[in-house]
Amino acid sequence: MTAKEFPSRLLENAVNEFATLPGIGRKSAFRLVMSLLKRDPAAVERFGETILRLHREIKYCKICNSISDTDICSICSDEKRDRSVICVVENIPDVMAVESTRQFKGLYHVLGGIISPVDGIGPSDLKIDTLEERVRAGGIREVILALSATMEGDTTNYYIYRKLSPYNIAITTLARGVAIGDELEYTDEITLGRAINNRNPYQQ
Amino acid sequence: MTAKEFPSRLLENAVNEFATLPGIGRKSAFRLVMSLLKRDPAAVERFGETILRLHREIKYCKICNSISDTDICSICSDEKRDRSVICVVENIPDVMAVESTRQFKGLYHVLGGIISPVDGIGPSDLKIDTLEERVRAGGIREVILALSATMEGDTTNYYIYRKLSPYNIAITTLARGVAIGDELEYTDEITLGRAINNRNPYQQ
Repeated sequence: MTAKEFPSRLLENAVNEFATLPGIGRKSAFRLVMSLLKRDPAAVERFGETILRLHREIKYCKICNSISDTDICSICSDEKRDRSVICVVENIPDVMAVESTRQFKGLYHVLGGIISPVDGIGPSDLKIDTLEERVRAGGIREVILALSATMEGDTTNYYIYRKLSPYNIAITTLARGVAIGDELEYTDEITLGRAINNRNPYQQ
Repeated sequence: MTAKEFPSRLLENAVNEFATLPGIGRKSAFRLVMSLLKRDPAAVERFGETILRLHREIKYCKICNSISDTDICSICSDEKRDRSVICVVENIPDVMAVESTRQFKGLYHVLGGIISPVDGIGPSDLKIDTLEERVRAGGIREVILALSATMEGDTTNYYIYRKLSPYNIAITTLARGVAIGDELEYTDEITLGRAINNRNPYQQ
């Protein structure tokens, strides 16, 4: 489908915009735009306005850098949460992933990425300084490093560990082991090795 | 991912809007919204504005009902096209599909659907009256019925044929046959039967 065949420049622009989204090709983009055109005008208006509002009004929490509707996010401002534990994550979906477990009642710190020399991302590109400031301010008992189990994650873990080791706090990482539902036969040897070394007493 | 876990109502609204698009689930919607947030603010602004403009400024051609930036679409206003032939199609993507063949130099008429009692769509819901008006106005030599090769398409073809038969014009339909690239073994018997009956002299 070449650009030449579009009967309308407005339609073509909309298709081009949708096609810039990840995983959306030009054919899908066209289908999405046509579905918008078939809708109730008020629904299309709301769709466009929602995207504009998202960009214009969204905030990033001044404490943890997570996405928020307010200057301080709902987690950081929740007095019922344990303010002495900080869970360090790479990005905002990770906050949501940990929250969905309902196992963590502390606060977060979103780094905004991970140290990756290949991608030209160094420690100064991440919110590591503000993490150190939070620890330096006191009242923190534990920092949980909840980064990806990759080389970049390990590098970032090590960098943060070095930064925070002068402070009198516990620095922990997520348990590594066989994922629930995984078959042993298909588990990689490093994970399996760690799972054997970190074995736990059997619980009925 | 439950709604409760969203750190922001703006984010949640945007995900909900994207999830209303066909073929986009909540996980994909979330990924699309996060990709928008990672972008240059100007790009997000443009995305939202493009959707709003699409809806606010798009027009439907007063002659053929195709999408257009102007009252009369670029095809209907093109003096180089054959104004004595009208190709009747179900919807706008069909106009683009026929245009992409570069085999047709006449005008179009978009019905805006197809007769489908199951979906409660009758002849009065379609732009059949305005098609008849165009024929009645004169100057038309042929109407090509380019609808889907389905029962609904056949019904609509028959209805339009009955409507237009009083006028002194040719009424044609698309050739049916084995699609180029199709293997005979997997061609359904009705298509194959029609292809045998409508066989053409071999051309080297």
